[in-house]
Amino acid sequence: MRGFYIGRFQPFHDGHLHMVEEIAAEVDELVLGIGSAGDSHTTRNPFTAGERVMMVTKAVEDVDITTYVVPIEDLERNSVWVSHVQSMTPAFRIAYSNNPLVIRLFEEAGVEVRQSPMFRRDVLEGTELRERMIHDRDWQTLVPEAVVGVIEETGGVNRIRRIAETDTNDDSA
Amino acid sequence: MRGFYIGRFQPFHDGHLHMVEEIAAEVDELVLGIGSAGDSHTTRNPFTAGERVMMVTKAVEDVDITTYVVPIEDLERNSVWVSHVQSMTPAFRIAYSNNPLVIRLFEEAGVEVRQSPMFRRDVLEGTELRERMIHDRDWQTLVPEAVVGVIEETGGVNRIRRIAETDTNDDSA
Amino acid sequence: MRGFYIGRFQPFHDGHLHMVEEIAAEVDELVLGIGSAGDSHTTRNPFTAGERVMMVTKAVEDVDITTYVVPIEDLERNSVWVSHVQSMTPAFRIAYSNNPLVIRLFEEAGVEVRQSPMFRRDVLEGTELRERMIHDRDWQTLVPEAVVGVIEETGGVNRIRRIAETDTNDDSA
Amino acid sequence: MRGFYIGRFQPFHDGHLHMVEEIAAEVDELVLGIGSAGDSHTTRNPFTAGERVMMVTKAVEDVDITTYVVPIEDLERNSVWVSHVQSMTPAFRIAYSNNPLVIRLFEEAGVEVRQSPMFRRDVLEGTELRERMIHDRDWQTLVPEAVVGVIEETGGVNRIRRIAETDTNDDSA
Amino acid sequence: MRGFYIGRFQPFHDGHLHMVEEIAAEVDELVLGIGSAGDSHTTRNPFTAGERVMMVTKAVEDVDITTYVVPIEDLERNSVWVSHVQSMTPAFRIAYSNNPLVIRLFEEAGVEVRQSPMFRRDVLEGTELRERMIHDRDWQTLVPEAVVGVIEETGGVNRIRRIAETDTNDDSA
Amino acid sequence: MRGFYIGRFQPFHDGHLHMVEEIAAEVDELVLGIGSAGDSHTTRNPFTAGERVMMVTKAVEDVDITTYVVPIEDLERNSVWVSHVQSMTPAFRIAYSNNPLVIRLFEEAGVEVRQSPMFRRDVLEGTELRERMIHDRDWQTLVPEAVVGVIEETGGVNRIRRIAETDTNDDSA
Repeated sequence: MRGFYIGRFQPFHDGHLHMVEEIAAEVDELVLGIGSAGDSHTTRNPFTAGERVMMVTKAVEDVDITTYVVPIEDLERNSVWVSHVQSMTPAFRIAYSNNPLVIRLFEEAGVEVRQSPMFRRDVLEGTELRERMIHDRDWQTLVPEAVVGVIEETGGVNRIRRIAETDTNDDSA
Repeated sequence: MRGFYIGRFQPFHDGHLHMVEEIAAEVDELVLGIGSAGDSHTTRNPFTAGERVMMVTKAVEDVDITTYVVPIEDLERNSVWVSHVQSMTPAFRIAYSNNPLVIRLFEEAGVEVRQSPMFRRDVLEGTELRERMIHDRDWQTLVPEAVVGVIEETGGVNRIRRIAETDTNDDSA
Repeated sequence: MRGFYIGRFQPFHDGHLHMVEEIAAEVDELVLGIGSAGDSHTTRNPFTAGERVMMVTKAVEDVDITTYVVPIEDLERNSVWVSHVQSMTPAFRIAYSNNPLVIRLFEEAGVEVRQSPMFRRDVLEGTELRERMIHDRDWQTLVPEAVVGVIEETGGVNRIRRIAETDTNDDSA
Repeated sequence: MRGFYIGRFQPFHDGHLHMVEEIAAEVDELVLGIGSAGDSHTTRNPFTAGERVMMVTKAVEDVDITTYVVPIEDLERNSVWVSHVQSMTPAFRIAYSNNPLVIRLFEEAGVEVRQSPMFRRDVLEGTELRERMIHDRDWQTLVPEAVVGVIEETGGVNRIRRIAETDTNDDSA
Repeated sequence: MRGFYIGRFQPFHDGHLHMVEEIAAEVDELVLGIGSAGDSHTTRNPFTAGERVMMVTKAVEDVDITTYVVPIEDLERNSVWVSHVQSMTPAFRIAYSNNPLVIRLFEEAGVEVRQSPMFRRDVLEGTELRERMIHDRDWQTLVPEAVVGVIEETGGVNRIRRIAETDTNDDSA
Repeated sequence: MRGFYIGRFQPFHDGHLHMVEEIAAEVDELVLGIGSAGDSHTTRNPFTAGERVMMVTKAVEDVDITTYVVPIEDLERNSVWVSHVQSMTPAFRIAYSNNPLVIRLFEEAGVEVRQSPMFRRDVLEGTELRERMIHDRDWQTLVPEAVVGVIEETGGVNRIRRIAETDTNDDSA
């Protein structure tokens, strides 16, 4: 029995890892979907799909079951989103999410969804973590060690700080 | 002489029907365009194109002239929007709209546009109707009976309520 | 109980109409999907979606059940095609097709498919009809009268003849 | 040695022209990229790419070096934006920008970026100029004479005023 | 009075230049559209839009009227192609082409088209020129000198030779 | 030091596995890109990206280095293909390929490419394997055992046989 857990993982943090460990106790194999895979270089989505593939793969290396880490590009069309996800991933029977839209889409497609009180909290940590990177406050203790390594290797903190300066009124690009 | 009337019809309501009846008195055939056809499952665009095709077709069944109900997907490019509409619909000579952008685009393309004081009011009813569905207040008396049937058949009220819970800060999907 | 029948309808001809009449005896409502809706102005797909909407609507006017005529744009991705079709059309329970790919896609999605010996034959007539238009041989007796009217109104025969001259080695456009 | 300067140029104004003249002193040839080329007919992006090509070409006619004016359509994907720009333009060695995102993207791709105190100011003038057009205040003295000609030839002021009336809550289009 | 001449210009050769000179005698300004701008690195379309912008701009430098060189990305939809071209270019009154599809599309849009016996011949030279590059036969005497320079600067001959080896049965990319 | 090896893997077979083992001896980590990820349900590309992710992941489970298996959707634009690949994958220093186009694209982007006599042969086996599936000849001995399992779990052989019947002249879908 395979489970599916999707997040944007910008970045992958301890809340996500905790979630993965909980799900791992309920399923035989786990598919981790990296959402909005085409987005990067914004304050809300600083990291590329490739950087996130590396973060997640390394962070879950010690989880005992087979895991698949799959980037999922946005299609901008809710009505085909579930089909799109299913075509990009090994077949799964249960989807884990607390996002009401995701829950609704899977339910309309006849896929069982499980929720967890954990989801909401780690969501908030995503925004918080990016704020901490921008303002040079501690974020390293809130993510798996492997994630610190990836962010340092790719110059991620410099990137998010630079982008945060962008004046959206700006006439260029 | 064929006329064209476009709306997102989320959902199709009595204001729209009234409009259709007024236009029907001025034209031989009427093309009803369902705008933003690819959008669904959001609070602003809860219903799929297919659900809206069904609503509109059934609601105008008693109108005496030939009507065409055509979903129009967004192209995200204003400069080719009129050509796109024209390629998806039977040829028409007059477009009915009160939307300043739509009016401008048709005028630049040399298509005659007619306005009506009715348009503005029913617009407001679109937002109002969706709010009423979310908060379980009467909406059924503001739409044609056939539309009530379609929304009940497709579980539309449950859908819009569920989606309205979505926290847009959420890290998933 | 609603049925779904899809074709490119380039143009809609007597074989298609015959099919529609057969299906109409088995269902309560019928959805007619116009495939490859974005394609036009080629020898294989000479007519726009709007022209085909007009052909089909007029040709089936005398069929006794409620029919919906819906253009379906290509998504170039087989794995989400069924979801795309379902989002653009009123919900249906049975799909009618003899195309092996269409059959397979619907079957994998759990939709019942019915076939008919008629399908294959009228397919051949599509190519044949376009050839006849190009070479000025009789095609008018093979399509419903309403279709002759639409093709004449839109200058369809001149268009397909002109396009057939296009040298595909050509350096322009 | 070729330089690259990108802007949305909605419209091209004296600040931009001043910038071009400064850059022209540092390079042998200059590529002027017209950003968001597919956008038009909005209050933020009123002019089409073609109108902007005309504005810019005529405004820089007296600049002494060879200039290329190239519309660049958005790809909605920051990670491939530099490659996209490079494929659409003659090869350049230096990019001129004060936009932090643009700077970051070019730097990650190994392209030298130069900044100038001028950039920021003219940015602000873009929004200001469009406001002046909408409210019938003097804008003609802030743009090159050739740009006044283009905007008058294309009815640009009427367009932006009409579009500014659009109620974004509107149910149509 | 402005004219429009479109080609893929893979590469721009003496036949094209001759055409431009003929048209220049009939119009006040000339817009040169570079078709299939997004295509490159194939045997049929070896050069990027940017490389072709450079070829064309330099080759027509001595033509006496104002010229605009504008890359046009494909939209894969014939029915909106004319609108797309018009949005990307300064407004023009006459289109020059011998391609039957292009002629038909402009005519249906109400744009005057002029043909010339020259067009057909230079078309053939496009394929011929690329063959000569691949097989190391003289091509330099068939293109303007500026084009030789651009192709040498960008390593164009090596590129087309390498790509010509591609086995299309290949499992990669 | 990370390496990159891309294929369509329709399906992943012993030639691919052999390749992976050879590369594994030269690099610290290996990124396996699944090309044309959006394609499926055709005779040339029968399997979805998700099915191929499962095949490849299971087939390389015993390889001793860290491997990443990443689906890569086509962008239909050669000039940004390398950037697209790089944004979807962990950073790599060497690309392995025998495909002339892939080699050329990486070389123009400054990425080192290594070739191997193995590549060509296994390419041929891709077509051969699909033919064997269609005509019920032995294919199971030419792919890793894990791949046999995946193809059986997903009904892959029935799918490819069914699709192979598709008459491409067909008027539907």
